[in-house]
Amino acid sequence: MIDAKKIKQDFPILFQTVNDEPLIYLDNAATSQKPKQVLEAIQHYYEFDNANIHRGVHTLAERATSAYEAAREKLRRFINAASTKEVLFTRGTTTGLNWVAVGFGDLIIEEGDEIYITPMEHHSNVVPWQQLAKRKKAKLVYLPLTADGFVDVEKSAEVVTAKGKIMSVCHSSNVLGITNPIKELAALIHQHNGYMVVDGAQSTPHMKVDVQALDADFYAFSGHKMLGPTGSGVLYGKEALLEKMEPVEFGGEMIDFVYDQESTWSVLPWKFEAGTPNIAGGIGLGAAVDYLEAIGMDAIEAYEKEMVRYVLPKLQAIEGITVYGPADPEKHTGVITFNLEGIHPHDLATAFDMEGIAVRAGHHCAQPLMRYLDVSSTARASFYFYNTFEEADQFIASLHKIKEFFKDGFI
Amino acid sequence: MIDAKKIKQDFPILFQTVNDEPLIYLDNAATSQKPKQVLEAIQHYYEFDNANIHRGVHTLAERATSAYEAAREKLRRFINAASTKEVLFTRGTTTGLNWVAVGFGDLIIEEGDEIYITPMEHHSNVVPWQQLAKRKKAKLVYLPLTADGFVDVEKSAEVVTAKGKIMSVCHSSNVLGITNPIKELAALIHQHNGYMVVDGAQSTPHMKVDVQALDADFYAFSGHKMLGPTGSGVLYGKEALLEKMEPVEFGGEMIDFVYDQESTWSVLPWKFEAGTPNIAGGIGLGAAVDYLEAIGMDAIEAYEKEMVRYVLPKLQAIEGITVYGPADPEKHTGVITFNLEGIHPHDLATAFDMEGIAVRAGHHCAQPLMRYLDVSSTARASFYFYNTFEEADQFIASLHKIKEFFKDGFI
Repeated sequence: MIDAKKIKQDFPILFQTVNDEPLIYLDNAATSQKPKQVLEAIQHYYEFDNANIHRGVHTLAERATSAYEAAREKLRRFINAASTKEVLFTRGTTTGLNWVAVGFGDLIIEEGDEIYITPMEHHSNVVPWQQLAKRKKAKLVYLPLTADGFVDVEKSAEVVTAKGKIMSVCHSSNVLGITNPIKELAALIHQHNGYMVVDGAQSTPHMKVDVQALDADFYAFSGHKMLGPTGSGVLYGKEALLEKMEPVEFGGEMIDFVYDQESTWSVLPWKFEAGTPNIAGGIGLGAAVDYLEAIGMDAIEAYEKEMVRYVLPKLQAIEGITVYGPADPEKHTGVITFNLEGIHPHDLATAFDMEGIAVRAGHHCAQPLMRYLDVSSTARASFYFYNTFEEADQFIASLHKIKEFFKDGFI
Repeated sequence: MIDAKKIKQDFPILFQTVNDEPLIYLDNAATSQKPKQVLEAIQHYYEFDNANIHRGVHTLAERATSAYEAAREKLRRFINAASTKEVLFTRGTTTGLNWVAVGFGDLIIEEGDEIYITPMEHHSNVVPWQQLAKRKKAKLVYLPLTADGFVDVEKSAEVVTAKGKIMSVCHSSNVLGITNPIKELAALIHQHNGYMVVDGAQSTPHMKVDVQALDADFYAFSGHKMLGPTGSGVLYGKEALLEKMEPVEFGGEMIDFVYDQESTWSVLPWKFEAGTPNIAGGIGLGAAVDYLEAIGMDAIEAYEKEMVRYVLPKLQAIEGITVYGPADPEKHTGVITFNLEGIHPHDLATAFDMEGIAVRAGHHCAQPLMRYLDVSSTARASFYFYNTFEEADQFIASLHKIKEFFKDGFI
């Protein structure tokens, strides 16, 4: 099994005190920390190769271009895309989903068509579809969930109709701690000749993703949640669909010819990549892939599963705790969302911070889900493979302490 | 005057050899190099403060948020915006201009309206307006230039009509080495109740920009050309206009309430900033502003002017050289675009690279201008304040050497 104590050495940020306590970072679903190998890749780029890419013939420009395109190939392999033409560098998941909604959605959606999302989607996978539906007078339909919080494939089959053109679902939830049956959902929407869009922000960092095996038509994810730099990300799309899809941002790099009144577009993948990209971001994300692959995505998933088996029952055993999502650790990812009776999640997160523990509180950019769960907000602890079991113990111990503290003094 | 030799010490990348020659980097209009102070700011963020911003109550999230918003305030002061509400973080100039064309253009442009650009615009300031004109059946009109290559304000006054709603012009050209009379152009379009958009990619790194003094309605620029990280940038807009303008990307951060079928937007500036931004990019850009301000933008402009006075006549004295833009160094910026008779610009750039000198060759993302100049491509040497006069000498000496080489052996 992964030696998290050893791995943690690669993350300098984790060795600091917060409020005089050793930092325990359990906010990985919001963003991950970066190993020194990723920081070194960024630093190396800026210290040796920095130049604008694609249009230069000088040595630095050629080195920068090679490094950036090599990173694209790493990303391609990482998600098993058929070609680098299918791997678009973006600013993050949000940009990727917006591009699909505008560049592809506007092309295929007509009045009365149906777009399917779920009550558990992050706002980035809700609002672009609301806007598309509004532009095209289409219908935005929410798919049913099981009692455990997964998308209910069987019941969804009763919802999806011949009017269904796009289904967009998160692979893993950023709140419920579940991983959805994307392959089955893709098969369902494909039966109706619709397209499957996947928000991979919470899955790609934590498991082996194979876009071809999933048969996703589009798959978006962020670099910063998988050890990569902020402002980096990828949108995967099947080549034939990206050929059809319209670019959403216009400018340098993405054009072929610019006439006075009209322009033609470059070939894939550059057709979508207007302007100077986040070059250091792409290269840093490539280094993150190297790091993740050296450990192994299966090993990472197995470790996080062990962690959930360890920590979830301890959490569930605390009186007054509500854990959202499946009670069974075998079905639960490392994202653990909970409330403690009588304590507002913000107070809980603040109390954790006093103990040096970073957890998140709020609606987690999932207001529709908060309504679905009938809560205004929750606390969330989210684990990654550099979190140790000792940190999990400390998290549980602190929760007991906080509970006592609030009981005696403040409630 | 600026001590470029001393300043150069802050840029580790400049101390390397390329093809066994000391690197001389004259491709600053494509992207600038980064001083170690900027790299340290990025590194410090990742090593101490990295967390997702705005939604967290834990210490790291608060530190990251403070650092990011402090960078916004630095950018505000740098361009003299009235409020941080007017300073939107973007991925770069291209994103900024695209946002204005869609979020504001779509709102105000109607069939038959006129949009003014110039023949010297970068593709990022051409194609978004072509697309807007196409969507709205509006007219894209090119303003006339003077013989020197400036936008001709007098002649433009004869072109602009009551149908004119948007004028979008580069502050400084990335090819012609000129700085346009933005204040006068803004006054002209304002007379007709239209709006002034400025592409500040080539000006902001090189001079003191005061958006209020210019009376620009929108002003876009990139971080990576002004010592900042790749994938960072700013769109300035007047508060009243940004209040009217629609967001272009949708997701987390930019919403207030997300109902099932519709959403409401957050307040400025966050209304436009969907998803996790390039946090390290924004913070690094703030550090770049610190660095530039410590030297002084007026000192930088004065130094570059001295450099042009020094190098331009030496270049012009070479037989067979065509320099584009004004012949008078007093009118010329540090962007020097030229061709040498009988040698293709790509061969020229390759020959320079053999001498360790990085210059650019091609259409410089300005195909309309290439047609206007009646050339297919040009070479371009672009200077910044860390370039020394010895480097300028070496550039001229190499050009003489290359000329001889091609004359004797290859032409």
